[in-house]
Formats: sequence, structure tokens, C-alpha cells
Amino acid sequence: MKKFEEKSFRSNSIFKGKVISLKVDDVILPNGKEAKREIINHPGAVAIIAITKEGKLVLVEQYRKALERSIIEIPAGKLEPGEKPEITARRELEEETGYGAHQLTYLQTFATSPGFADEIVHLFVAQDLYKIEEKADLDEDEFVELMEVTVEEAEQLVQEQKIYDAKTAFAVLWMKSCLTKK
Amino acid sequence: MKKFEEKSFRSNSIFKGKVISLKVDDVILPNGKEAKREIINHPGAVAIIAITKEGKLVLVEQYRKALERSIIEIPAGKLEPGEKPEITARRELEEETGYGAHQLTYLQTFATSPGFADEIVHLFVAQDLYKIEEKADLDEDEFVELMEVTVEEAEQLVQEQKIYDAKTAFAVLWMKSCLTKK
Repeated sequence: MKKFEEKSFRSNSIFKGKVISLKVDDVILPNGKEAKREIINHPGAVAIIAITKEGKLVLVEQYRKALERSIIEIPAGKLEPGEKPEITARRELEEETGYGAHQLTYLQTFATSPGFADEIVHLFVAQDLYKIEEKADLDEDEFVELMEVTVEEAEQLVQEQKIYDAKTAFAVLWMKSCLTKK
Repeated sequence: MKKFEEKSFRSNSIFKGKVISLKVDDVILPNGKEAKREIINHPGAVAIIAITKEGKLVLVEQYRKALERSIIEIPAGKLEPGEKPEITARRELEEETGYGAHQLTYLQTFATSPGFADEIVHLFVAQDLYKIEEKADLDEDEFVELMEVTVEEAEQLVQEQKIYDAKTAFAVLWMKSCLTKK
């Protein structure tokens, strides 16, 4: 879909970091005028709606420096170069929660901040979970606390803004609408 | 919530743009080690789930340079400095769709990319819509195409990945779960 396409005629790389890169492109607008676009490139990520045998949602609390606070999220992590999202999903689920999943189903992909970033999140549903005996280590700069909540408890965490990110808000709504269907 | 807090002991401003800024902070981790955090600051935004008298969802198609494609989204826009989100919501709804709303209800706020950005989106539900006679102009670098779809059509657009962003995916699920309740 290329409607209203904005073609770049100049691209300035500003920053290449460990996680994100920033460039500023000069583009031609559909009306022939020029504009600048500030763009973040990100490797992409996965997130996992993991549901225990008791029907609880698996969540992790972690500090998010960009927000200067800790929030409660579904397990998630960045894609390694060339890695299939399903592999990333299994690894992140294991590292962050100590769970493996006999059943892992792809649900949906979405862009998180299309106004300035190309980050996309591939969302999976993990069911029929089992505890990994020798849990893989987290990344050395990662600190998370695990919890398992009912859908009502998750809704309460949304109300209290302890669940505060788009992918987890989506996950809670998805879980609720699934439970309503039954 | 400050669990696992990462305190900055150095902060380097890399870029200040029209929309976003980038800084790299050196932080002390909970285990006493050091790490770098790449952080995007963004002014924040609003998004509006606008529902017509016929029960259709109002959507706009626009080109998203970061994704290099056009996608179909709920109306949205950035906060001006010091502006109340409700004011932004009314302005963006009017500019992008030509609709005013007799009823505008705050729904929820979420962070879009907590791993690297402080962007938050305040989500509103607009109902009892009326056509503005003298429609306000879009920003001069904004080009959008308006459409109104049923919840089934919106779900089809999700399937086709024409709806492809987190806030709109959330909106479709929210609308569906509301309709299921009735």
C-alpha cells in the first residue's frame, strides 16, 4: 500500500546504537512540497500471551528507563538478526518466566509507534505450559519479577496503570474477549 | 513504582528534532553494574475510537514513512505543549475526519514502546458524532483518506494487515468486545 507515498530524496543517519538507530529523511509529499521525517529503526520484537493450566496470565514486572518507572507486561523481547519470531518467542518465554509451551500459536503483528518508528511486535499465544528444569539465564542487564494473574486481576492492574503498555493492554482485552466467548 | 530502578549517572543528548529527541543514559543496574539506555522522548499523543450513529468505526488511511507504507488507523495526533489530551482529541478528530463529538469519553492511556520510548497514547471514545460545517485544515504535511467500517470489516482489515498498528488493533478488539456484551 503506497497511497500518499513520501519518497526520500536525502537520508541522514544521525545515530546507530545497540538497540535503535535514528535517521532524518527529506521527503517529497504528495502535493510536491518537501518535509522532514525523523525515523527510528528497531530490530522488531515478539510478545507472548502465556496462559497457565489454571487459566492465569503470566506477567513480568520490570523497570523501563524510558518511562522512569517499573511496569507490568506480558513477556517480550527483541528479535536477533535473521531469527524467526517463533524461536525468539520460545526463548524469551523461557528466559523471563521459566516456562516452555507445548502449544505456541501466532496471533497477530502490529507496529507500535508508526508515527516515528518501524518497530513491529509479533504476538504469540502460549498454552499447555511446563516448567523448564534448568531455566535459561536472562540477559545480564535484565531484572524481572514474575507473577500470574486472573483476567479480573489483570483488569485491575490496567485500572491502576501498573499495566501500562499497548501490547499488554491488548493482551488483557484479548484474554477477556476469549473468556467471554466460552 | 520504582522496583529495579536504573539511576542515570550520565546523560548524553544526541538529537533534538521537530517530533522526537534522542538521548543515551549511563545507568547503574540493581546489581551495581553499569549499562547504557537509548531513549526516545516524544510529546505524547491521543487516539480516538470514533463510532458513527450507524455503529461504524471511523478510520483514516495515511502513509507512514517509518514503515514505508500506508496503513489504516483510528484518528490520532500529537499533544501540543501543555495541551489537555481531551482538547487534542477533539481537534484531531475534527481535522482528520470532519466530525465533532457530543460525547467524548476517556478510555485508557498506554505506552507504545516502553523498551526505548516514553511515548504514551491517551485513548478516547467519541460518540454521538456530528459533521462539522467548516472543517478545520489538516497540518500542511498530512494527507489522509477517510473511511467508515463495520466491526466485521475492521477485523478483515486486521487480517489483511491493512490495519497494522497497536492502537487500532486495540480499538478493533475493544469495539468487538463491546458489541459482544450487548
